[in-house]
Amino acid sequence: MAKQFICTSTEPIVKTKAGKYRGFIVDGTYTFHGIKYADAERFQMPKAPKKFEGVKDAHSYGFVCPMLSPETATGEIMVPHRYWPKDENCQYLNIWSQSIDKKAKKPVMVWLHGGGFAAGSSIEQICYDGENLSRFGDVVVVTLNHRLNILGYLDLSPFGKKYKNSGNAGNADLVAALKWIHDNIAGFGGDPDNVTIFGQSGGGMKVWTLMQTPAADGLFHKGIIQSGVIDGFVSNEKQDGTIIVKALLKELDIPEDEVEKLETVPYEKLAAAYNKVSPEIAKTGAYIGGNPLANDWYLGDPVTCGFTDHAKTIPVMIGSVFGEFAFGPGVHHKYDLSEDEILEMLKKKYKGSIVKFVKLFKKSYPEKNLSDALVIDSIFRAPTINFIKAKAEHPESATYSYLFAFEFPFDDGKPAWHCSELPFVFHNTDKVVICGKPGASDELEEKMAMAWVNFAKYGNPNTELLPEWAACVPGDEATMIFDEKCEVKHNFDHALIKRHLEIAPSFWEMFRPKEDDEEVVILH
Amino acid sequence: MAKQFICTSTEPIVKTKAGKYRGFIVDGTYTFHGIKYADAERFQMPKAPKKFEGVKDAHSYGFVCPMLSPETATGEIMVPHRYWPKDENCQYLNIWSQSIDKKAKKPVMVWLHGGGFAAGSSIEQICYDGENLSRFGDVVVVTLNHRLNILGYLDLSPFGKKYKNSGNAGNADLVAALKWIHDNIAGFGGDPDNVTIFGQSGGGMKVWTLMQTPAADGLFHKGIIQSGVIDGFVSNEKQDGTIIVKALLKELDIPEDEVEKLETVPYEKLAAAYNKVSPEIAKTGAYIGGNPLANDWYLGDPVTCGFTDHAKTIPVMIGSVFGEFAFGPGVHHKYDLSEDEILEMLKKKYKGSIVKFVKLFKKSYPEKNLSDALVIDSIFRAPTINFIKAKAEHPESATYSYLFAFEFPFDDGKPAWHCSELPFVFHNTDKVVICGKPGASDELEEKMAMAWVNFAKYGNPNTELLPEWAACVPGDEATMIFDEKCEVKHNFDHALIKRHLEIAPSFWEMFRPKEDDEEVVILH
Repeated sequence: MAKQFICTSTEPIVKTKAGKYRGFIVDGTYTFHGIKYADAERFQMPKAPKKFEGVKDAHSYGFVCPMLSPETATGEIMVPHRYWPKDENCQYLNIWSQSIDKKAKKPVMVWLHGGGFAAGSSIEQICYDGENLSRFGDVVVVTLNHRLNILGYLDLSPFGKKYKNSGNAGNADLVAALKWIHDNIAGFGGDPDNVTIFGQSGGGMKVWTLMQTPAADGLFHKGIIQSGVIDGFVSNEKQDGTIIVKALLKELDIPEDEVEKLETVPYEKLAAAYNKVSPEIAKTGAYIGGNPLANDWYLGDPVTCGFTDHAKTIPVMIGSVFGEFAFGPGVHHKYDLSEDEILEMLKKKYKGSIVKFVKLFKKSYPEKNLSDALVIDSIFRAPTINFIKAKAEHPESATYSYLFAFEFPFDDGKPAWHCSELPFVFHNTDKVVICGKPGASDELEEKMAMAWVNFAKYGNPNTELLPEWAACVPGDEATMIFDEKCEVKHNFDHALIKRHLEIAPSFWEMFRPKEDDEEVVILH
Repeated sequence: MAKQFICTSTEPIVKTKAGKYRGFIVDGTYTFHGIKYADAERFQMPKAPKKFEGVKDAHSYGFVCPMLSPETATGEIMVPHRYWPKDENCQYLNIWSQSIDKKAKKPVMVWLHGGGFAAGSSIEQICYDGENLSRFGDVVVVTLNHRLNILGYLDLSPFGKKYKNSGNAGNADLVAALKWIHDNIAGFGGDPDNVTIFGQSGGGMKVWTLMQTPAADGLFHKGIIQSGVIDGFVSNEKQDGTIIVKALLKELDIPEDEVEKLETVPYEKLAAAYNKVSPEIAKTGAYIGGNPLANDWYLGDPVTCGFTDHAKTIPVMIGSVFGEFAFGPGVHHKYDLSEDEILEMLKKKYKGSIVKFVKLFKKSYPEKNLSDALVIDSIFRAPTINFIKAKAEHPESATYSYLFAFEFPFDDGKPAWHCSELPFVFHNTDKVVICGKPGASDELEEKMAMAWVNFAKYGNPNTELLPEWAACVPGDEATMIFDEKCEVKHNFDHALIKRHLEIAPSFWEMFRPKEDDEEVVILH
């Protein structure tokens, strides 16, 4: 059935500090695509967007940040993408809301996309669309683009005061977006005093780096970290860009005293030079940019540096998914394999004895097929457990833990992979066909979207759709397992994950470039 | 409600001449994305795709052809796009079918995308998705990418025999795709002896250029031309690439006897050189490539060169839309304007007296608001009338005429623009929010999709959902007006269009680059 579309000369128009925007209404959902929340020169801090006369149409998503490498589309069935035109002038956000009444004061959910700090966009995944979540939860959903990779995270501070915080320019865009939301969201029916930031993968890292960024204090009030903790990704060491920038200048044949030329080098040229010189420098362990830099603006990883006093007050919901980087071809016919056959496969994959691991796996996941032990994740789960432990030490605010363990109807039953919970969170499983498991996926979507919405509304994800879910306290991680049957377990996989870490390939072993872009499956 | 997703180790797998592909099934629709239908070296004719072992996953759309200019996203509310990674290795097709039984023999509808011959892709518009049309009509839908612009249409024949047909390489890809469909579609439940090609804008031009291409004879059996006739777009003059290629070589600093270097110049460099040298040459009226070239492979525009004997046997459905290039800001508050105010606006827009024009408009469109006369199209409609006249001279096959005149719920009532009928044809109005007019758009979608499907099935678009619709005969163009009320009229706008041509700005006046990428509307 057709949804009613409304966009006339008089509605929906919202006045922002910079000027008026006209969006459109779809079955009651007020929608605005591509609002400019800031302007920025390359390597500089963002500024408030230019004021304008008249009414701008917010009908097209804005440019997304250029990436270091050309994109290729593989594995679209697992993570369907939306590619988009690129430009470094990329500070755009999108809004979905059920009201544009200033007095409505609906909770605001701000989505921070993943792709590390180097790639992705507010619309990179089909499931990032905010319409369904806004309607389902009666919340204001905001998604946004910001500067990434060397545009967002390249420290030039040793080369001049004007580059003081260029190493965190991308996160500064996030703060500018939160400031824009603070100043303008009431006009879109939102409550500036009830803002939740949520993000997955790099987006999860953005949540906790913003918790440690005093400039963002007060601009958001809760955080959801989805598969967003991974060891060694964001360094805390005091570093600077001397080495990488000198190498870049040399490669580009620019004298050091003309460093300002980097501001106008075409991005493609800058990226090519960076791609050429950075791998060798990375091998030495030196800073090469691309991620936030701990300094007096961003105060570093809370697990190792400690939570700021303000961060301690932020309620957090945090979790990961069963398989995470288990992207590759699954175990076909897994339900036809004998236990002996599976044990052989486990022995082949893991280093050292699997006896204890298998025992622990069966205890943690009595209802899972043993073959799933081949793809269980500890790269995210282990540091997530540590994050939860650290956060739960602070009784100032609640910490809720979850694990997403749904089995998808793919390859004869595929455990949840990195990003696979997102269609459920956004109530968008209708847009991502691989989620389609009648009798199971719709129910799980209701439960998860409701938990996310309730956390955003109240700082507490509990809903009558789910069993009682306690916040974590020191020594007791109460974890909501999102699966066809949802249940809460306590410290249920800590021993398993510990053993897995000992015998599994590390992140850096797993996360190497693909040798072949084509999707070839050899079945049987 | 969740649609059932199926993709296991054993289904759905289809064997093609090159090898086996695994797709996926969504609520019974067999789906295959990104099947390679041909391989080609730059400027060379396409060849059958490489054979392979094992099973390839057809789960991701393939590369689309690189474009001459970077893309920017504006007007997405009117034509929502899907941008995609690009590579000249772009001969990919996608299939949606209700069966993979070789005996099923369902009608096949092959979509040829628009964007002139220079841009676009099989998935460029959100509404090109074939799932709904396949399910609704029980037809096999195929969409495809092919080489475009200078990769598909640059004549190098004066520089060597090996480049004999490089000026039509893009259309040769289309023929290769039709050959692949002929050879393989039975395995996807399709009938190779009942293939309809349909396309809009450039895609419509592809339909009639293929009708005039003997190499494609027998590979398709019916054609639908949607807003695909426009004067002066594809020249019939015997031309060759001497001038443009010499200029390109000079710009790239390549000696003429090393023309083969053009085969390996990076595309970005080739495109930049072309963009630099071609405008000056275009001003002289000389060939600059970018469109099919009449030669002994493609026999030229049927209206001026005559239909081939084979083309005369191809049933054709052909039409255009009310406003076509009326993309710009509409007339706001049009229903609040007095007739005098509208007349003033008409006088301002048109050259010469509008008295007769207004009278004819009211006669042709008694139920339309007079302000729509500001945006009525003749650029497509006039040559479409001529095409229909020429085709109807040949009684060997039927010619059906339509005009799409739906008013969209945008800007207080916006007449149909270029591309706006496509969501209705593909039964995808649910994916394009601007179509959403409860009580009207769903009904029109049923009627249009059914007419398209029936034409593909039977060579006759009649359906009980619509009034009786006669084929055109000399002197009588029976035109189905697709609107909230669908009706057939006879030669209903010929006098109107004739007068409009006399007083309206020409195509080349209208179709100039935008001065500003931002969507600013000044209302009132």
